[in-house]
Amino acid sequence: MRKRDFPVDDVRRFLEPGPIVLVSSAWKGKTNIMTMGWHMVMGEEPSLVGCFIWDRNRSFEMIRKSRECVINVPTVDLAATVVGIGNTSGRTVDKFAKFNLTAVAGALVKAPLIAECHANFECRLVDSRLIDRYSVFVFEVVKGYARTTPRFPKTLHYRGDGLFMIAGPTVSRYRKRFKPEMLRA
Amino acid sequence: MRKRDFPVDDVRRFLEPGPIVLVSSAWKGKTNIMTMGWHMVMGEEPSLVGCFIWDRNRSFEMIRKSRECVINVPTVDLAATVVGIGNTSGRTVDKFAKFNLTAVAGALVKAPLIAECHANFECRLVDSRLIDRYSVFVFEVVKGYARTTPRFPKTLHYRGDGLFMIAGPTVSRYRKRFKPEMLRA
Repeated sequence: MRKRDFPVDDVRRFLEPGPIVLVSSAWKGKTNIMTMGWHMVMGEEPSLVGCFIWDRNRSFEMIRKSRECVINVPTVDLAATVVGIGNTSGRTVDKFAKFNLTAVAGALVKAPLIAECHANFECRLVDSRLIDRYSVFVFEVVKGYARTTPRFPKTLHYRGDGLFMIAGPTVSRYRKRFKPEMLRA
Repeated sequence: MRKRDFPVDDVRRFLEPGPIVLVSSAWKGKTNIMTMGWHMVMGEEPSLVGCFIWDRNRSFEMIRKSRECVINVPTVDLAATVVGIGNTSGRTVDKFAKFNLTAVAGALVKAPLIAECHANFECRLVDSRLIDRYSVFVFEVVKGYARTTPRFPKTLHYRGDGLFMIAGPTVSRYRKRFKPEMLRA
């Protein structure tokens, strides 16, 4: 499916609603993927995203050392894969092979993009000072890609305890109530 | 509508899916409410939530000084109110009065709860070191409340540019694919 470049200062369109994401990484010739639900937009210019990465995940050290990752946004058709990745350790398994996912080379980072995801954001670690205290990595999104259709995909939103909320419709009917300066130019 | 105490170590059920929230605060006899979409769960025990609060919001100084707030989770029936609050300054308006919301006293904080919201989380600021650098407040949720029904309310998820995703169904059909230790006891 076709993807277009997606402006990095607009990643909130995909990340602010809170989807579970797949984070891919590469280090010393190996790749890995983890499932992540704790993240937040922290700025638009530069485009910053804060991510909680548990220090028991293998991805933790791979991302800390490589200082890069890709945040991939999966949709509901990948639900079983998302759960499988979150319940498998990268120490013993090549997740791209096991889950039959396609690694695509990034433009600006060595971490691979996951082709099957709706959107992909290449990220560089720009602040490692919160890692020891909170397991929080602050990334700058340096390049984005998104499928051209659907505009608003059915993302998965984790609630803990094995439960997912599936994204409902996106509505524009409240847009007329916004002050013009709160909307994009 | 009836609410029950909600365990603070399970706030991810409401916050991890990424809803827009209303943050209420109190300082020197005044109250305020702001709309907030940039937040993340950062831990369960203690229950930590990181929140980006723009320094041009009046709530910024009120929360920094009082070191408290309440995170309230509104549902789609409050959409016009959520947008109105996000497009009005607390400098000139009493938002509880203007938007006809009911302030309820908290148990552990002076900031008022918003009765009309589905869930309410009383928060204390436990780390102010990220405020100057990132406008990020790290709160500990010290007490929670949630309506007993519906179990999974239709929350609003902001995408920027005046667009909201409305929460779809919550599904348990992937739960059987989780390792037991990934589920709650």
